[in-house]
Formats: sequence, C-alpha cells, structure tokens
Amino acid sequence: MKDQADTPLPPTELLICVKCRRGRATVADDDRWPGQILFDALTALPVPEEIRLTPVACLQNCDHGCTVALRGGDRWTYVFANLDEVADPAMLLDGAARYHATENGLIPWRERPEHFKRNCVARIPPLEVPNV
Amino acid sequence: MKDQADTPLPPTELLICVKCRRGRATVADDDRWPGQILFDALTALPVPEEIRLTPVACLQNCDHGCTVALRGGDRWTYVFANLDEVADPAMLLDGAARYHATENGLIPWRERPEHFKRNCVARIPPLEVPNV
Repeated sequence: MKDQADTPLPPTELLICVKCRRGRATVADDDRWPGQILFDALTALPVPEEIRLTPVACLQNCDHGCTVALRGGDRWTYVFANLDEVADPAMLLDGAARYHATENGLIPWRERPEHFKRNCVARIPPLEVPNV
Repeated sequence: MKDQADTPLPPTELLICVKCRRGRATVADDDRWPGQILFDALTALPVPEEIRLTPVACLQNCDHGCTVALRGGDRWTYVFANLDEVADPAMLLDGAARYHATENGLIPWRERPEHFKRNCVARIPPLEVPNV
C-alpha cells in the first residue's frame, strides 16, 4: 500500500524528435531516419512507468540533432542536442530518471550525465501562476 | 464593449535571458551584460498588454546568445538565438505579436521575421492532456 504522506513526483516526459536526420543526406537501409531509430531504441529499453516517451515532429534543432527535451510538473524544461541514436539511448533514460528525481528539473552538476553538461541548447522555466 | 463570442487568445510570454554575455569577455561601460540590455530595451518599448516580458537567469543557450523564448496557452514554445540587444528589440516585439495572433504558435512562414526563420534552436509542443 502506498503511504499517503509520500507524495509522488509528477511524471516526466521525454520528447524525442523522430524526424531528425542528424546531418545524413539519405535514409538508413531500414528506411528510418536517426530520430526514429533513437525513439525505437528507447521504446525497446525498460522505461520506468513514471517516464513517458513522446515522439515529436519536430523539435527544430535540425543543425545539431538528434535532439530531445525533458519536462514534467513544475520542473524546468531542458533541451539536449547532438545525441547519437545508437550510443546514447541508455544514457538518456538514466538522465531522464535523474531529472525525474528532482522537483525542479535541476540535476545536481556532479550527477548530471556528461552529455547533458555539454549539450544543453536551451532550458525554459516552469510556468508561474498566471497573473491575468 | 467586448463581444462575448470573441474569445480572447491566451496571453503570450516573451522570456529573455538577462544573464547573456553574447560572447563578450567584459561587461559594458554601464555595467550591464547584453542580455540585460536586451531586456531593458524591450521594457522601454510600447509592449502590448497581452504580451508579458519575463527575465530569466538563464536559458542556457550560452554559445549562441542572446536568447529568448515565446510561449503561452496551448501554443508551441519557441526558442530563438543569436539576437542583438541593440538591433533586434523592435523585431522581437513584432515577432511576439505575430506569435500571439496564432492559436498554436506556428507563425505562417511568409509572415515570420527573417531572424526567426534562421535562428530557431528548439521548439517544444504544447502540453497534452495528462494520461496519468
């Protein structure tokens, strides 16, 4: 039974640009672009239920793909670039779990995946209470 | 009197990274960084009441500043880079007004400021109805 006092953190959304070509001029042999390969690789991994994978067309960071975003609840939204569809899926899920563990989206620097440290292209603050 | 059938569009927020150094090694003579100069220049212009200016520290697009973001209601959020704090404030407010005039945040291509066409570093879809 769940402890009523243990308020769960709001879910986290990992958005993946599935149209990303990552600089390739032609599609892969299996007819998929890198963004789709990245999304498919993520869905093939054991994804914690509190993390939702969302395909997006597209995140418009086309010169520095593959690109993903993390958001959820009252956290800052982060956009990360230059991801490799083969090498990075497990790192991405680890980063998403670390992000999910925070209330505000700010993963402590030392706990941040190295890729996140050097490839953040933007972060956007949580919505404030509307003043209108 | 306002026509009751004329539902107003949700307000638009223009977020400005006020910490941006835009590649400068030293602060300006007046002790302000380019991001703060950009924010101050925007506040000195006639800003439509449906557009809210929000200073942010920081948007973490430090290699390609100055940087701003546009969001509001159920629109896509857009992040634009490489802004000049002296040349671009009026263009930015014009772009914000064009963004505000849309329901989904997608300014028709031909109506988009030239700077927006070539300096989008990311866009993030509106939140969907939570499935949890």
